[in-house]
Amino acid sequence: MSGKAIRQAIDAGRWEGVEIHAYKPEGSAPFRDVTRQVLFSRPDLGCDWRYFEVGAGGHSTLERHAHVHAVMVLRGRGACLVGSEVRAVGPHDLVEIAPWTWHQFRASEAEPLGFLCLVNAERDRPVLPSADDLKGLRADPKVAAFIRP
Amino acid sequence: MSGKAIRQAIDAGRWEGVEIHAYKPEGSAPFRDVTRQVLFSRPDLGCDWRYFEVGAGGHSTLERHAHVHAVMVLRGRGACLVGSEVRAVGPHDLVEIAPWTWHQFRASEAEPLGFLCLVNAERDRPVLPSADDLKGLRADPKVAAFIRP
Repeated sequence: MSGKAIRQAIDAGRWEGVEIHAYKPEGSAPFRDVTRQVLFSRPDLGCDWRYFEVGAGGHSTLERHAHVHAVMVLRGRGACLVGSEVRAVGPHDLVEIAPWTWHQFRASEAEPLGFLCLVNAERDRPVLPSADDLKGLRADPKVAAFIRP
Repeated sequence: MSGKAIRQAIDAGRWEGVEIHAYKPEGSAPFRDVTRQVLFSRPDLGCDWRYFEVGAGGHSTLERHAHVHAVMVLRGRGACLVGSEVRAVGPHDLVEIAPWTWHQFRASEAEPLGFLCLVNAERDRPVLPSADDLKGLRADPKVAAFIRP
């Protein structure tokens, strides 16, 4: 956290005093070209407010967990899987990911997808799909074509 | 809350399935031309994620409280008071309002100011400034010129 009350946006998806991190430790889960920034994180807020940016052609991890995601796209275009639904998303669209719902975000091939993602400060770790889970997901051709496990 | 996992942005500061409310009950506190929308609110998230829009020339209430605000400007331009600091703000700027810090948002005269505001789901009620508080705030000419109590 910065000690400054006001931190200016200095470019698209960049803020003064906000560090850019790896999305996850390399090799810990499948993903491609994703960065993570923590915009607000303090215990009395109850939540962590993060910004993720998926590079053009990149994707977040296909995963699920007990905790909820509240997402707003901030910039760019892409698509997401939520449960068995695959949908195009663009600026300011809202995505709610309920507990134990499979989800994955992909940026378009032409531009990055940047999105805000809110989570409870206390949360469980994501779970990756098993071979059986993937078989179930791939039963739907639309989902099969979308996912990058 | 909408039961839909994905709710599209349908216009600047407007979303499908998200109702536009009065900022506060009329007459309960001083403000001018502000609307409130709740984007996400569920107990397991820990936070409420709201969007406020201050019309051109309008202002939110000058107030303070124990709970924290985490703010990101989404659209338009304006300025805010945070403690004794008055600062211009624009798209994607981040504002953190610590406990018991006086704060107020004003839109520019030319365009509305829309901002995301995150709060703990469990929070106290705002307190308005007393005559003594206002005297203290007005000791700083910059603050005196800005506030609309």
